[in-house]
Amino acid sequence: MKLSGGVEWALHCCVVLTTATEPVPAARLAELHDVSGSYLAKQLQALSRAGLVTSVQGKAGGYVLTRSPELITVLDVVTAVDGAQPAFVCTEIRQRGPLATPRETCTRPCPVARAMASADAAWRAALGAVTIADLAHDVDEDYGPTALAGIRGWLSGPDGDDTADQHRVP
Amino acid sequence: MKLSGGVEWALHCCVVLTTATEPVPAARLAELHDVSGSYLAKQLQALSRAGLVTSVQGKAGGYVLTRSPELITVLDVVTAVDGAQPAFVCTEIRQRGPLATPRETCTRPCPVARAMASADAAWRAALGAVTIADLAHDVDEDYGPTALAGIRGWLSGPDGDDTADQHRVP
Repeated sequence: MKLSGGVEWALHCCVVLTTATEPVPAARLAELHDVSGSYLAKQLQALSRAGLVTSVQGKAGGYVLTRSPELITVLDVVTAVDGAQPAFVCTEIRQRGPLATPRETCTRPCPVARAMASADAAWRAALGAVTIADLAHDVDEDYGPTALAGIRGWLSGPDGDDTADQHRVP
Repeated sequence: MKLSGGVEWALHCCVVLTTATEPVPAARLAELHDVSGSYLAKQLQALSRAGLVTSVQGKAGGYVLTRSPELITVLDVVTAVDGAQPAFVCTEIRQRGPLATPRETCTRPCPVARAMASADAAWRAALGAVTIADLAHDVDEDYGPTALAGIRGWLSGPDGDDTADQHRVP
């Protein structure tokens, strides 16, 4: 079982966008994260389709979060990039073979499917309990209040401020 | 994110093995589940490598659980078939780009990786809280105490008892 690698980039981008004072071009996010622009654009488009970010057009255009980071959960981002389908797909094995259970009596998921669905729900609940604001807060907790501020300064520079004495963290 | 389809077959096979009174050949499990023998053999070999089942050699040979089904969790089976690696793989994005965090200061996982690891732990905890015995119990709860007994009868027949008036459920 493996999540799309885009989940990691998308989460980091969302945390970065919490500190931006203006729309951030996709190319600028790609530069900050040292990743191909086309690859990151794909993740940003997924976030946009899910209504988590929007693209502001124009000379000073770029991406912004569509709502407060307190209202965007990690689950929202994971679902946007990786899809909403559960990891376990029941193929109704019980309806196969010489002792098959008749379809009409299969009115609820079988015990195997229920156990897997419970675990999936626990995973989603954990991801849904953490917001992008929580992640940004944790970055400041981990690295000090200048961490995100350093990114903000870099983002607002015309060509970035590569000499900033800050670590880029999220 | 998607689990290997073999997880479903492996879990159903383990539940079936709880009711068997003798070793069950892989071909018999494949017949019961109406799946290719070579495909099912692969899952049984994964269970065997993980020490959950063992193959008894000889004319009356076949697969048996290596321990009480109370001591085999759904997580054991999922891990045996799908591997133990977490769904989210952190690639240390924070160490990339013009504001990279120096490697030596990355002494703990970043907030994104921690949030994903917590969800993974919740998923594993849920799967680890359900045993194969629980699943077998739930089958009897769902379909009545004759459900697994019907499978037992079919398995013990020389060529199976395809006319058994029982539903095959797990």
